[in-house]
Amino acid sequence: MTLQIAALASRVGTNVAAIIKCIDDGLLDAKINIVISNQPGAPVLEKAAQAGIAVYVCNSDDYSDREAYDRELLSAVKGAGADTVVLAGYMRVLTPVFVQAYPQRILNVHPSILPSFPGRMGNEDAINYGVRLSGSTVHFVEETLDKGPVIIQAVVPVHSTDTGKTLMPRIQAMEHRIYPQALQWLAEGRLKIEGHRVTLLSAKIPSISLGSSGQGPMGPWMVSPPLEGF
Amino acid sequence: MTLQIAALASRVGTNVAAIIKCIDDGLLDAKINIVISNQPGAPVLEKAAQAGIAVYVCNSDDYSDREAYDRELLSAVKGAGADTVVLAGYMRVLTPVFVQAYPQRILNVHPSILPSFPGRMGNEDAINYGVRLSGSTVHFVEETLDKGPVIIQAVVPVHSTDTGKTLMPRIQAMEHRIYPQALQWLAEGRLKIEGHRVTLLSAKIPSISLGSSGQGPMGPWMVSPPLEGF
Repeated sequence: MTLQIAALASRVGTNVAAIIKCIDDGLLDAKINIVISNQPGAPVLEKAAQAGIAVYVCNSDDYSDREAYDRELLSAVKGAGADTVVLAGYMRVLTPVFVQAYPQRILNVHPSILPSFPGRMGNEDAINYGVRLSGSTVHFVEETLDKGPVIIQAVVPVHSTDTGKTLMPRIQAMEHRIYPQALQWLAEGRLKIEGHRVTLLSAKIPSISLGSSGQGPMGPWMVSPPLEGF
Repeated sequence: MTLQIAALASRVGTNVAAIIKCIDDGLLDAKINIVISNQPGAPVLEKAAQAGIAVYVCNSDDYSDREAYDRELLSAVKGAGADTVVLAGYMRVLTPVFVQAYPQRILNVHPSILPSFPGRMGNEDAINYGVRLSGSTVHFVEETLDKGPVIIQAVVPVHSTDTGKTLMPRIQAMEHRIYPQALQWLAEGRLKIEGHRVTLLSAKIPSISLGSSGQGPMGPWMVSPPLEGF
């Protein structure tokens, strides 16, 4: 069933652009009904408006109470008829008021192989730790930050000379594939959550095949479960 | 310079066998001077003896004091002329008495993409969390468990039907390549530790090349830094 998406982003929202492109290309059965930012002037708003998508600013500076803010946010999301909430660089933690209103319908992308390096500075934390592999995780959002059930993960190498800035584009290139893929699986009703584990039903590509890995312009990558055309 | 290795293992020690094979094949410039186990009857002891390697049991049941145990262990390691200590499924935490005697010369392999899932049950913890990627990390040992500077990491997919038992062989197949590789880099003096980051000097294979990833009998894998012939 076509997803009716509300996308929440605080800044550039490159994942929103990637999702728009996958919809336009006919890969992703979804419609973005509204893009909401907590930051007036966030570049994502202009990008969405150019694509003919309704935008809304819910300025976090206007609210001292986090729950009051989330009630306003929820009203905007519901008003747009959204059945799915896509967090794309949304730099606020959702309160239970919001999370409980969309059980198993809020998705987030985080630039690390969770559970390593949760939180705002995940990418920089990975560099400082000295890991040699990092990546990205698309997961369902629950009430604990960056802890919900994992849908799909991607991994890329970290070089010894990397900084957060040089690593991030390598990770984002994969986010722009795995996030639309996760949404398409959701649209197809193929994600089954049991406890903290997610099963992809009727996987089209066996994990053992080369479908899981490849070589991009920025180097090798691996994704699990394997991408299906994204 | 040829490494003089003391290998510590509690059980089967499949990584010890992998290291022996790489030495025999001329890939790894090292000699295992002694294999030590804290468990009498550990299968690793018989395997080592068959390969003509000295073995020693330092039975942990005989010591109530962890430091006294580690002093005995240290005396065995030093007595064997070892300059490098290889932990291969050694299920005890080393005390500072031991760690401080071999600074930057103790290596460990851990079956997860550290810092995710440290500790004894790392592999099972990964399954229970529902991650879609896991792997292995070879790192220098410092006084905090599973926290030392990372030398090399490997990643493999986790399938939704995996258990700890089905995932482990996929991880071990990579451990048997990355552990000998890490040791060979140490033998070549090519590992530079700065703070918590390790740089591989004079890398022969650029990370962007396909040298970092491949397809094995158990599916796709990725390693960083890239393997050099292992």
